[in-house]
Amino acid sequence: MKLSARAVGLPASPIRKLVPFADAAKSRGIHVYHLNIGQPDIRTPGLFLDGIRGYRADVLAYGPSNGLLSYRQALCRYYDSWNIPLTPDEIFVTTAGSEALLFSIIAIADAGDNVIVMEPFYTNYNGFAAMVDVEVRGIPTSADDGFAVPASEKFLEKIDSRTRGILLCNPNNPTGAVYPESDLKRLVRLAEDHDLFIISDEVYREFTYGDTSHTSILQIPDLDGRAVMVDSVSKRYSACGARIGCIASRNRDILTAVMKMGQARLCPPTLEQLGASAAVDTPAEYFQRVISEYELRRDTLFGGLMEIDGVFCRKPDGAFYMMVTLPVDDSDRFCQYMLEDFELSGRTVMMAPGAGFYATPGLGLDQVRMAYVLKQEDLVASVEILREGLRSYSGG
Amino acid sequence: MKLSARAVGLPASPIRKLVPFADAAKSRGIHVYHLNIGQPDIRTPGLFLDGIRGYRADVLAYGPSNGLLSYRQALCRYYDSWNIPLTPDEIFVTTAGSEALLFSIIAIADAGDNVIVMEPFYTNYNGFAAMVDVEVRGIPTSADDGFAVPASEKFLEKIDSRTRGILLCNPNNPTGAVYPESDLKRLVRLAEDHDLFIISDEVYREFTYGDTSHTSILQIPDLDGRAVMVDSVSKRYSACGARIGCIASRNRDILTAVMKMGQARLCPPTLEQLGASAAVDTPAEYFQRVISEYELRRDTLFGGLMEIDGVFCRKPDGAFYMMVTLPVDDSDRFCQYMLEDFELSGRTVMMAPGAGFYATPGLGLDQVRMAYVLKQEDLVASVEILREGLRSYSGG
Repeated sequence: MKLSARAVGLPASPIRKLVPFADAAKSRGIHVYHLNIGQPDIRTPGLFLDGIRGYRADVLAYGPSNGLLSYRQALCRYYDSWNIPLTPDEIFVTTAGSEALLFSIIAIADAGDNVIVMEPFYTNYNGFAAMVDVEVRGIPTSADDGFAVPASEKFLEKIDSRTRGILLCNPNNPTGAVYPESDLKRLVRLAEDHDLFIISDEVYREFTYGDTSHTSILQIPDLDGRAVMVDSVSKRYSACGARIGCIASRNRDILTAVMKMGQARLCPPTLEQLGASAAVDTPAEYFQRVISEYELRRDTLFGGLMEIDGVFCRKPDGAFYMMVTLPVDDSDRFCQYMLEDFELSGRTVMMAPGAGFYATPGLGLDQVRMAYVLKQEDLVASVEILREGLRSYSGG
Repeated sequence: MKLSARAVGLPASPIRKLVPFADAAKSRGIHVYHLNIGQPDIRTPGLFLDGIRGYRADVLAYGPSNGLLSYRQALCRYYDSWNIPLTPDEIFVTTAGSEALLFSIIAIADAGDNVIVMEPFYTNYNGFAAMVDVEVRGIPTSADDGFAVPASEKFLEKIDSRTRGILLCNPNNPTGAVYPESDLKRLVRLAEDHDLFIISDEVYREFTYGDTSHTSILQIPDLDGRAVMVDSVSKRYSACGARIGCIASRNRDILTAVMKMGQARLCPPTLEQLGASAAVDTPAEYFQRVISEYELRRDTLFGGLMEIDGVFCRKPDGAFYMMVTLPVDDSDRFCQYMLEDFELSGRTVMMAPGAGFYATPGLGLDQVRMAYVLKQEDLVASVEILREGLRSYSGG
């Protein structure tokens, strides 16, 4: 019984593939600090859960394929508050950002086509692309310059006749980079010159620190409608289990295509759209508090890591991840070691090995992605455990 | 800006593509009876909604990619009650049957491969296959013999070197056929002879009438693990908006492949898994009542249709659809006419045009699919409206 070649070739998620080792550690009584996954411990706003609990109809029925109109109207208010004017017709509600990414990729690329992605990138782009036979072409970015958008020549080296788009994540998971307007304009111009789409994954919009601010791809002049914005409520409202996202675009053809895919799968979950609608009225103070908390966590984790010999990373401007270089030559093996063979007073840390965040073979082998989604004292403990783990791993 | 060829080629759902005409009719004050879509008016069991409302955690967090263990354990109890022994590891929870179908197709077929489907079939198989460049090859079945499984020779005519599986729906949407064990054994033997998988969509398991009973593909001896069962709670608990389904298989390779796809999309909705877990304890009386109600509706709709001149259909044994032949030569146009140009005392009916339920061009043009998910008096009214609509359409 042979599976399809694409099924066999699917990458295992570097974020989740070590889960069996973590489970085994837990069953040995070890406490595992989860730096591997962006699952915040921040409370979901009460409005969100109340919006769900308030459902009173007798039948939990199908909703519209493009999402409840009331929710799309609420989203327009939300985007308006970010100076991103949109109409309900320009928004297509998806089952989380994941479905938004899958549908966007299918909409622009055929089997054998490729999309350009700055690497390291959100690892699951690899999975979605592999499911539909699209190649992800990586352009390396580097901690040295803050994982900035590379020179246009770097893109030109990768673009060929099968290139259909540029896929970016802004604020970036896993690097924490936030792209300035000038870079986004440059990318749109590049897309115009080579007839490409731009898919912009903006699920971390809220999470920028200091005086960094976010620019949406939909705020860049784009007469042809090359921009496809992907969004999700998972991080915004700490509601990762809700599975509500959306695609927003001013391109009618894109909207027609995603509607057809959406009709095939009927609709996104009904109840969580009610929760997300209610959550649009989450007060600004909630976000101020959450963002200050993340900023503190970033500083704590960054400060702690900087004091470990041989560890290098860059203080990120947004999202809640860091791509961290460790003094190891195979971070996959090291991450597994930390779960299988190491503990410090009954505790260890789980991290996501770096290689899975790259498309270019050989890159990221000495890196891990860490999510600073845990409270400060847990981050302090995690840094201590990592320091001792590295010492013990290298036989020091 | 050119979309991908596959996006451009995506079929519009015959179930939903006429929605704009229905909306326009409603905005003119016309009441539309929805026979087009399998959205039951049956109450969702209280246990299901209570299971969701009972969620008390502060954070609506990611769940496991293959679904909550507690839910998979509950599903094992459910399948056990149907004499389908499964372990939690053999079940992968999906975002509705839709995702289960998409993942199953990707797992077995590459771009350019094909799967064999008896037609008419659940139209969205076309959409999922088109999204991932898999061809759906139809083998016609006919109302004359109850839409029975065709002779094996008919399958042999369609199987070639790129055929990867047989996809069936049992009980069948849209024909209402329920396949006997002997036919399922024959299909498994055929699959063994030609090294094919069998994907069996069994979301209507509960809905069989008279002394018809359901046999699952997982109850047929199958040493190689060719069987992949697709399921959903949408119809079982009248919870179409919940978006919870699953894949069940005893094939480790299939389970590994869907796990990788599942990790890419992180997890299915958390809350509805709690609802579906609770609903496993829905008392037998609920289903007895619901099934009697559907049986009555079937008899009402069938009896009414039989009295309209030129209308032909077969009394189905399962699910809650009928494929109905009408005295028209383009049911697409007729269904649109009923929404745009016809009303009877301020009411009309919406049906799903038949052609979209076939892969073979030219078939189904004189058919519509009707779902008998409305209460009896609405079905009586719908039949009356259809009769008058047909009369007026033909200029009679």
